[in-house]
Amino acid sequence: MHSKGKLFIISGPSGSGKSTMLAEVFEKIDNRYFSVSATTREPRPGEVDGVNYWFKTREEFKSLLEAGEFLEYAEYAGNYYGTLAEPIIKQLEEGKDIFLDIEVQGALQVRRKIPEAILIFAIPPTFDELERRLRKRCTESESKIRERLDTARREYKEAMKYDYIVVTDKPGEASNEIISIVTAEKCKVSERKYLIGEA
Amino acid sequence: MHSKGKLFIISGPSGSGKSTMLAEVFEKIDNRYFSVSATTREPRPGEVDGVNYWFKTREEFKSLLEAGEFLEYAEYAGNYYGTLAEPIIKQLEEGKDIFLDIEVQGALQVRRKIPEAILIFAIPPTFDELERRLRKRCTESESKIRERLDTARREYKEAMKYDYIVVTDKPGEASNEIISIVTAEKCKVSERKYLIGEA
Repeated sequence: MHSKGKLFIISGPSGSGKSTMLAEVFEKIDNRYFSVSATTREPRPGEVDGVNYWFKTREEFKSLLEAGEFLEYAEYAGNYYGTLAEPIIKQLEEGKDIFLDIEVQGALQVRRKIPEAILIFAIPPTFDELERRLRKRCTESESKIRERLDTARREYKEAMKYDYIVVTDKPGEASNEIISIVTAEKCKVSERKYLIGEA
Repeated sequence: MHSKGKLFIISGPSGSGKSTMLAEVFEKIDNRYFSVSATTREPRPGEVDGVNYWFKTREEFKSLLEAGEFLEYAEYAGNYYGTLAEPIIKQLEEGKDIFLDIEVQGALQVRRKIPEAILIFAIPPTFDELERRLRKRCTESESKIRERLDTARREYKEAMKYDYIVVTDKPGEASNEIISIVTAEKCKVSERKYLIGEA
């Protein structure tokens, strides 16, 4: 029984613990495909081209954009982020599940093109905890932190349009929630109606 | 944060492996409440009143029915089955999740009264496997088995109205699917919007 893969889009503000959570998901499940976004932002220490992001210059990014290669793109904190369409569509057709780690506006753009995409928003248990985590990171100026908190507030409002919220509180909890969501989505009657059609 | 409990209704034809699966679910999760149905059918060997069912005479059942005490009831294979409303409503208000093991017509009746109920249908991987399991049980006549298979076919059609299908194939698989569904349902934005309203 060949069925199409499912597209899971994960968003969460800076400091949400989303990256740690996704690394855990990646360890716990096999045969999933993580899509790598393209971005014009500078790599952070330790980030690898083609693993964390495809790092592009603004000129490279714009030329891909003009060629219609993006499923979504957005400007975020002064940089462009985008998802190349072709590899995603191909993997879904092959029946592979895809995880897409993109910000809120991009997620809503993808849903307009792929309505069956499942949108998951990752947050700490409270907004105060988000602020605490951002400050603890200490790599950014006060004005940058405030900018990130304002962005986070806007994202929280848009998250009402998402399907699920996972909470990055205790270690392992949010990744278990993600894995449960993946399992549950595959149990939906729309996914398994071929099993009851044969009676 | 006090939120209402969720009502999970599990149905599945005779031979679906539903009882084994529910026993596993019961072992794996705490703080859940399994609702016990009332029935006029004869207890099978080993079945205990108040545990497997509340065993009632037809007269007792009809008098409860006339008093409006049932959330749903149905006649099935010549016997009455019903779910008493009051304990369910009370437990949901207290924030407890409830598992209700009832047949298809009853499940759809409950959904009309409690639209947020989540309906899960349990089946073996194929319909042939269902027949094999029914015959292996060897406790019933050929005509009873055929009657059960006809009933199962009708139930499979109604299962299109359910939310989820779980497959009782490998041991532990269906109960894990149920637990994932419970977790995922609790991650839905409608359940957790209070977490994003505070930003």
